[in-house]
Amino acid sequence: MPYHTVTFLSDYGLADEFVGVVKSVIARLASQARVIDLTHDVATFDVRAGARVLARAAPFLVPGVVLAVVDPGVATERRAVAIEVAASPGWCLVGPDNGLLVPCLDRLGGAARAVELTNPDRQLSSPGPTFAGRDVFAPAAAHLCQGGALADLGRPVDPATLVPAWPATHRWEGDRLVVEVTWVDRFGNAQLGAAPQEIDRLGAQVSLGLPGGRAVARRARAFAQLEPDQVGLVVDSSGQLAIALDRRSAASHLGLRVGDEVSLSPVSGGPRAT
Amino acid sequence: MPYHTVTFLSDYGLADEFVGVVKSVIARLASQARVIDLTHDVATFDVRAGARVLARAAPFLVPGVVLAVVDPGVATERRAVAIEVAASPGWCLVGPDNGLLVPCLDRLGGAARAVELTNPDRQLSSPGPTFAGRDVFAPAAAHLCQGGALADLGRPVDPATLVPAWPATHRWEGDRLVVEVTWVDRFGNAQLGAAPQEIDRLGAQVSLGLPGGRAVARRARAFAQLEPDQVGLVVDSSGQLAIALDRRSAASHLGLRVGDEVSLSPVSGGPRAT
Amino acid sequence: MPYHTVTFLSDYGLADEFVGVVKSVIARLASQARVIDLTHDVATFDVRAGARVLARAAPFLVPGVVLAVVDPGVATERRAVAIEVAASPGWCLVGPDNGLLVPCLDRLGGAARAVELTNPDRQLSSPGPTFAGRDVFAPAAAHLCQGGALADLGRPVDPATLVPAWPATHRWEGDRLVVEVTWVDRFGNAQLGAAPQEIDRLGAQVSLGLPGGRAVARRARAFAQLEPDQVGLVVDSSGQLAIALDRRSAASHLGLRVGDEVSLSPVSGGPRAT
Repeated sequence: MPYHTVTFLSDYGLADEFVGVVKSVIARLASQARVIDLTHDVATFDVRAGARVLARAAPFLVPGVVLAVVDPGVATERRAVAIEVAASPGWCLVGPDNGLLVPCLDRLGGAARAVELTNPDRQLSSPGPTFAGRDVFAPAAAHLCQGGALADLGRPVDPATLVPAWPATHRWEGDRLVVEVTWVDRFGNAQLGAAPQEIDRLGAQVSLGLPGGRAVARRARAFAQLEPDQVGLVVDSSGQLAIALDRRSAASHLGLRVGDEVSLSPVSGGPRAT
Repeated sequence: MPYHTVTFLSDYGLADEFVGVVKSVIARLASQARVIDLTHDVATFDVRAGARVLARAAPFLVPGVVLAVVDPGVATERRAVAIEVAASPGWCLVGPDNGLLVPCLDRLGGAARAVELTNPDRQLSSPGPTFAGRDVFAPAAAHLCQGGALADLGRPVDPATLVPAWPATHRWEGDRLVVEVTWVDRFGNAQLGAAPQEIDRLGAQVSLGLPGGRAVARRARAFAQLEPDQVGLVVDSSGQLAIALDRRSAASHLGLRVGDEVSLSPVSGGPRAT
Repeated sequence: MPYHTVTFLSDYGLADEFVGVVKSVIARLASQARVIDLTHDVATFDVRAGARVLARAAPFLVPGVVLAVVDPGVATERRAVAIEVAASPGWCLVGPDNGLLVPCLDRLGGAARAVELTNPDRQLSSPGPTFAGRDVFAPAAAHLCQGGALADLGRPVDPATLVPAWPATHRWEGDRLVVEVTWVDRFGNAQLGAAPQEIDRLGAQVSLGLPGGRAVARRARAFAQLEPDQVGLVVDSSGQLAIALDRRSAASHLGLRVGDEVSLSPVSGGPRAT
């Protein structure tokens, strides 16, 4: 069954021609395929950030090929793979086997079967070995959009051997939930690795333990419900808790970065640390 | 009549997956629709800047749906709307009712009829309430591209009640025209809220009153007609006056920002202030 | 023969609506044409950088129209041109005649015939003269995608009179090869204007003379083969030599910028300068 759409994520940025060249290669090999850019501004080499973008977006993507390239190990022994999704016929993930794909794969239903992209006849003969997006991954995506067989791309891989994702910090310490900042978006909202219902018992006000001190956050449905400079805890577009301010960057205001640990506890919960 | 093209503007930026997710939702619901990105780098929450981009671009856009999202009031009582254009059959504007759409609407010919996007059957059931572009606006745009009726999207809105645009500063003080910087583009050209013919009587040299002092500008047809460091007044691509330098940023050189007031007066017009 | 794809490069950036407006004009005039963005983040006015992007990408592009706009001389006497490629039927280059197109043209096989875009019937009547991408180049690209004749666009131009490209520094000084940094990409790899085989006789370790001092680089196939902070010389995706580090920016680490001269010499080659 041919795929019609390639959803494309990378850390290539848009300043160089990398993204345009990958799309050109796809268009040359699979002229009818549609490409949707998910984002190309994943921080360079940040496999974990890319994996999180894919996982967040997974429920909304168009069935087809998901082409994802954040690939610090390019031209080494890391495997390049294509993975058919089990529970969602019509999906195939293409990219490096470095943890980038698995969180998205899990959201879509796990792997049916996978191959390593070892068949040189399905690759470009490249002038240099450092651009697997162009030479290996784009031709594989195009092959699948042409109705080509997965097995033509290379040798089978046991899905159980795929490099797994990293877990994010998530632990209870008494009545404190300690979680990680998993995303800071353009608006400065700091997503936490926690679901809203986990802290319902903490009430409408929550004490935040931050790298730079403490703050009290009010749970709110909308950014605009917050008073100026009032820290809020909203349910963000992924259904996760996020620390937010109204029309300001909470991350800048509070000095938060991805990977920081944040604790959530009752406001009345004992003496406050600095 | 189905629409074929969605022209999409937002303040989502391209670093996160917001734009890609909106396009994915449109592609899932209206597979044949074409999306043209106008820009997604409107400054966050800057409804006025977004409105100006839409108005400037309006004469050149492809008929179809204009999907515009700069939406600081998301998840509050601000209305989400779809507006059919009166004088230009084949156009429908979709976005928040906060002043973003009206300047473009006026350029296209005013509203024929409008609805508020209140029909939950035409929205995604979202994991969180903060991403109306994905959950409310994209499904509405896709519905229209599928040939769906405007009235299916929600309850009628009186176009006269749509939130209007903000006027820009524009006044004569004797022989001085005081206007606002309405746009600073990538090249540093500072567009003014004034048409060229308004200052024809000031002659080929014009005295500029700027926030940081005064300068004399020469009217020019092309940037490259200006000497190095010579300030020019050109007719820009919107047909408006713009302060420019050749191959340099006039805005940086003169310290100009959007919203600054600038006066234009005759060079011989009396003593110069500092 | 109509063209189906427009590959589009510019220095317009993505913050303003320039790129979206150009695409809208193409879509209005040639509804079926596909546009692939190569990049729009060429440094403003940097014709040479744009020319290099086009030349690097040329072997991978989809046949069709290449629309390239880096145009500091807009609205002056510089010619706007369209050039049919000789050796590659199915290609036409459209843009300013300022050196931007010729390196790509040379890669594709040289010019068959060219015209200057002088026919006002194939242009938009613009509100201002500064946006040739919208008013002159996009309509020309669309005309060609509609199957329109090259000769309809304007008067013939002798391809021999096209503005040539600039040569990059490349000279041997005894056993030292002196070349230029021709590209610094998002990852900080500094491409040199030299092919790998040119320095094979220098061995596996090469002494680099840099603007800020000296370094010893090890030739490597993959970034990840390099030890932390070890400077490498890899064959990059264009088949050129590039100075690189593993998962770090070599350009930042070594203070390298495009246009800098770098020398490559044997490690054992005499005393080291500071």
